[in-house]
Amino acid sequence: MKRRDFIAAGGIAVASALFAPHLFATTKGKPLKILALVFDDYETLDLHGPVEMLGHMSHVQIQLVGAKSIIRSYQGPKVLTDISIEQVTPCDLLIVPGGIGTRTLVEDSELLSWLQAQEKVSKKVFSICTGSALLAKAGILDGVNATTNKMAYQWVTSLSQRVHWQPSARWVDEGKFLTSSGVSAGTDAALFYVRQLNGDEEARRIERLTEYHWNDDSTNDPYAVEV
Amino acid sequence: MKRRDFIAAGGIAVASALFAPHLFATTKGKPLKILALVFDDYETLDLHGPVEMLGHMSHVQIQLVGAKSIIRSYQGPKVLTDISIEQVTPCDLLIVPGGIGTRTLVEDSELLSWLQAQEKVSKKVFSICTGSALLAKAGILDGVNATTNKMAYQWVTSLSQRVHWQPSARWVDEGKFLTSSGVSAGTDAALFYVRQLNGDEEARRIERLTEYHWNDDSTNDPYAVEV
Repeated sequence: MKRRDFIAAGGIAVASALFAPHLFATTKGKPLKILALVFDDYETLDLHGPVEMLGHMSHVQIQLVGAKSIIRSYQGPKVLTDISIEQVTPCDLLIVPGGIGTRTLVEDSELLSWLQAQEKVSKKVFSICTGSALLAKAGILDGVNATTNKMAYQWVTSLSQRVHWQPSARWVDEGKFLTSSGVSAGTDAALFYVRQLNGDEEARRIERLTEYHWNDDSTNDPYAVEV
Repeated sequence: MKRRDFIAAGGIAVASALFAPHLFATTKGKPLKILALVFDDYETLDLHGPVEMLGHMSHVQIQLVGAKSIIRSYQGPKVLTDISIEQVTPCDLLIVPGGIGTRTLVEDSELLSWLQAQEKVSKKVFSICTGSALLAKAGILDGVNATTNKMAYQWVTSLSQRVHWQPSARWVDEGKFLTSSGVSAGTDAALFYVRQLNGDEEARRIERLTEYHWNDDSTNDPYAVEV
């Protein structure tokens, strides 16, 4: 991909250590396919924090999926979807952000049915913030250790008694399911996924590239709740 | 705005301390008008980190401005612009993100002319990452203390000798101009702007609401460069 050759070339000029040689191999093989659900009043950083970190992996394709073509974030700016929820699309990672929009979506049977079908063709499912409310209502997290937004903990956990909710965790990884705490926790969990997939060196490269301070310890939850 | 009443109501149920009474006053007076420039291959978090934090202020309108209607981020997802750069739009804050797209835009005379005109009708200008390269090339930062992406420091600072570039600063605030370091530094600088505008309590409310760990000290720059 020309665009990536360009950033790689730019990288050599300005920060060679950050742009590893594998960036030049991005046209080989199939890309890692990432799908992210979007809906009106999704929380901006729930989606774009993970997109930022995951999008710097060397060979990745990130697409947005939703019930309509134009989706408005809670903060205002609009995104364009690439795929409709009228279909399911096999992918390596399905991202489910949260936001105030989930308050009504937990009653949306069309969306919950799509989630149930899409989960079956997704290698891993990653929820951020109250995105876990949608997974819980769809029964996808039954019997799974999971966490959620600590500011909305009471509401989310009230939606399903069958999920093993964790009141203290920046994120919880259970093989197929990665669930993070509120908003910015998704960015930390995304770097955990990069490390899980490509190793610590790749995660640190992206941390430096984005001048980020990664909370890399899932047990370090500054917003843990008492239960 | 009904949407905000909704989140305020939800807030009362789940985290009343976070949703201050002023949220209920959002229909009174004129909103704080924020404009954010977008262009192909803009860096996702440069834009959406600040949008996340600023969008939680009690009475704000955030719109995207660009040279065309559909803009693709470096990471892939597309946003829709609200306003064209064929016009200038008076605003309280103009956000200029960075990204690999700036490498070609620094030679785009139409965009640089728009920036010069738009700056004159913007109360404050806030650049993130290599967004400062565009402001520097447009001469907007002449004689101003400013900072930029530390991973692209050599390239950005080579574009103008008239800017007083700061090699160690998470962000630099000089009245009209707020310039941040790379990518995630913009999120910290955005919370600084919230504090400057509405006080520390409001900034801390948004920090907690987003379960964020705010680097609130502009002199604490983990990515400072030697010059």
